Amino acid sequence: MQSNDPIQIGLAGYGTVGTGLAQILLNNRDWIFRRLGREVRIKTILVRDLSKVRSAIPSPETVFTDRIEDLIDDPELDLVVELIGGYDVAYRIITGALRSGKSVVTANKALLAEHGPELLSLASRNNLGLSYEASVAGGIPIVQTLKESLAGNRIKSLTAILNGTANYILSEMTEKGLQFEEALDMARKMGYAEADPSLDVDGIDAAHKLTVLIRLAYGEDYPYRALSVEGISGVEPYDIMRAKDFDYEIKLIAQVKEKSGSLQAGVFPALVRNDHMLAKVDGPFNAILLEGNAVGPIMLYGQGAGDLPTGSAVLADIMTLVNRKSFYNNTGFLETSLPKASILPSELTAAKHYFRFTVQDRPGVLSVLSGIMGEHNISIAQVVQKQEANGQTVPVVFLTHTAQLKDVTSAMHEISKLEFIKAPTVHYRLL
Amino acid sequence: MQSNDPIQIGLAGYGTVGTGLAQILLNNRDWIFRRLGREVRIKTILVRDLSKVRSAIPSPETVFTDRIEDLIDDPELDLVVELIGGYDVAYRIITGALRSGKSVVTANKALLAEHGPELLSLASRNNLGLSYEASVAGGIPIVQTLKESLAGNRIKSLTAILNGTANYILSEMTEKGLQFEEALDMARKMGYAEADPSLDVDGIDAAHKLTVLIRLAYGEDYPYRALSVEGISGVEPYDIMRAKDFDYEIKLIAQVKEKSGSLQAGVFPALVRNDHMLAKVDGPFNAILLEGNAVGPIMLYGQGAGDLPTGSAVLADIMTLVNRKSFYNNTGFLETSLPKASILPSELTAAKHYFRFTVQDRPGVLSVLSGIMGEHNISIAQVVQKQEANGQTVPVVFLTHTAQLKDVTSAMHEISKLEFIKAPTVHYRLL
Repeated sequence: MQSNDPIQIGLAGYGTVGTGLAQILLNNRDWIFRRLGREVRIKTILVRDLSKVRSAIPSPETVFTDRIEDLIDDPELDLVVELIGGYDVAYRIITGALRSGKSVVTANKALLAEHGPELLSLASRNNLGLSYEASVAGGIPIVQTLKESLAGNRIKSLTAILNGTANYILSEMTEKGLQFEEALDMARKMGYAEADPSLDVDGIDAAHKLTVLIRLAYGEDYPYRALSVEGISGVEPYDIMRAKDFDYEIKLIAQVKEKSGSLQAGVFPALVRNDHMLAKVDGPFNAILLEGNAVGPIMLYGQGAGDLPTGSAVLADIMTLVNRKSFYNNTGFLETSLPKASILPSELTAAKHYFRFTVQDRPGVLSVLSGIMGEHNISIAQVVQKQEANGQTVPVVFLTHTAQLKDVTSAMHEISKLEFIKAPTVHYRLL
Repeated sequence: MQSNDPIQIGLAGYGTVGTGLAQILLNNRDWIFRRLGREVRIKTILVRDLSKVRSAIPSPETVFTDRIEDLIDDPELDLVVELIGGYDVAYRIITGALRSGKSVVTANKALLAEHGPELLSLASRNNLGLSYEASVAGGIPIVQTLKESLAGNRIKSLTAILNGTANYILSEMTEKGLQFEEALDMARKMGYAEADPSLDVDGIDAAHKLTVLIRLAYGEDYPYRALSVEGISGVEPYDIMRAKDFDYEIKLIAQVKEKSGSLQAGVFPALVRNDHMLAKVDGPFNAILLEGNAVGPIMLYGQGAGDLPTGSAVLADIMTLVNRKSFYNNTGFLETSLPKASILPSELTAAKHYFRFTVQDRPGVLSVLSGIMGEHNISIAQVVQKQEANGQTVPVVFLTHTAQLKDVTSAMHEISKLEFIKAPTVHYRLL
């Protein structure tokens, strides 16, 4: 390719992010030219259904196709951008493009979480770029930051809000006292939630992204299936209110921590103190708070999804690949394949905890509960018992000091067998 | 240089940041090697006073010198890192190194603000790197983010807290009701303020950094001397308290906005609403909030100074220069020299405003003041008059709707001549 020729892109998928990318290329064309000295053109777009009428087309010359070969075998394409999502087709596009000598930009967190090691290793062996800024937290430059800007840091911990849909739902529940289902309906109306919201509300999407971030932060592969993942569909307004009384908010948190060489990682709803930076992250926003051993705490905040924000990240990857030409820093590490992470069992997690027990309203209950906690090394920081209208059962809320999750599990097991416990106990970690 | 040989660094200055860099290189040596495949060694350190006893020395082989030539003329050095600060010597080191074919990493915001165009153009003409992540906001990767991660975005505005000392002082005044001088003493005790704090509290340091950021965000040179700069030494606890009543905090803000192709930029104390992300930035922390035309709002937050955070940024620049070898993206634009910015006069700034008038306590005053404001197209949002102890004069506080700064200036001029005005009027913009 001549150095002033346009950069020819083969794009797979023309949904939200693909049309966003096309729009940015159009709106900011001169600006991009000032930085690259070349135009970026979408030459070919691979779609599933060629018959679908499309209103916004990048240019009259853009060719739509439903044949993967038109992307991976076209020698005129400088780069392939995979925005089709899912596993099978996306996998064939990415591996096909890399095998035919084309660098790839992708936003596919699910594929990277599950097949990242193989794909990244294939890219390295072929000395090609496989870039994925858009796969985590939309336009927030967290991939770039971990690969280069914090490259000299050991990362002690990373704590993040990585799913805008779940965060929006919890924000709505907190602000307006809505039930989960009502807030989910709001999210659907706002276009934040899919028809099937399970990837978002069950924590799966956040877990995919966390897997990608762990690789970048620690240079190790943490098997996605080994993550402990808990979603928000069980979160009740009652606990959001009690959390508020204690100056906390409930957020869906993705977290990884390093502890004597092992990693402890998961996605879970947690109580976050009001004065914590992550507590300010409301609505569909994302944020990543890192603790580096040199830089200290750093937070990056922005929109975690959407056509233009995610398109902005895709474009950054395209421009960086074009500029650097031969230096492909796909993981931030030199190895063609990364070692497996040593995993700390989640039972060894130490945290403060929130419990809501639903108990029969009678004397002595508090003493039994606190006795069992004490026997399991769980020391209590605060107790709140509020008389409720029904008279039969009352909720008793405990905040604990730091305790091991294994002690919590065994205490909860013992408590669950008590006859005065009238409903499953609600349990959250404090951040 | 052989590709597995250690990277040999010549370091100018061995103060806070230099020793921080040496410490990170020591602590994270294996980690850095995993990313570079090479060791990073500080071969030579240029200091002003060779006789000074130094406790932490990078390695027994490190040579201390007081001759600039030992850095710029040593063919074994791969890079020169300038952390000596100031203008003359730093200028000679940077230009000397670039002329002798060495890329340079610097943290020198003052030099970059005043002589950036010349230095960056020299680096470009020699196809060398001149990197300066550490010059703005310590370890926060704002330079990298503007150069690459947001490269496809037009930046609509950038609003930032860029001076940790000033922010710490204002936080202390807000939290503890301290006078400026008391909070400054606290900052000195904490090691956040220099013996001569004027660079920090007068807004000069923030203005230097803003100049560097404007260049990166807009690809234009905004002459440092053309910035309007106002510091915080005149901020009084009384106004902080009133601002609090209105749900605002006073922060030292560095801001640039684009308006029909022209830039409007300055450093000034401003009222920031409590629910604004920048209002949460307390103590010695920095944050940069950007609005891109694709990515939307993005915020980066972290420690703006200190040995290890700033050392982390210096190291990121070193590692990036080593990795990329021949691609030097010093400004993010291809031009060897950038065009001059078109400057929008600050009088054309539109903002909401806070006024505190000190008036003689007598009837009709409020009507005269609001009348003059109305004549100058300033519409009033809130008025608070609280009776104070002294009885002679009373403060009257106004919050206005959006008004032009030129109208504000002429109204204030007219008001200052009124005989019932008993002290200079306090005026802040609202963010």
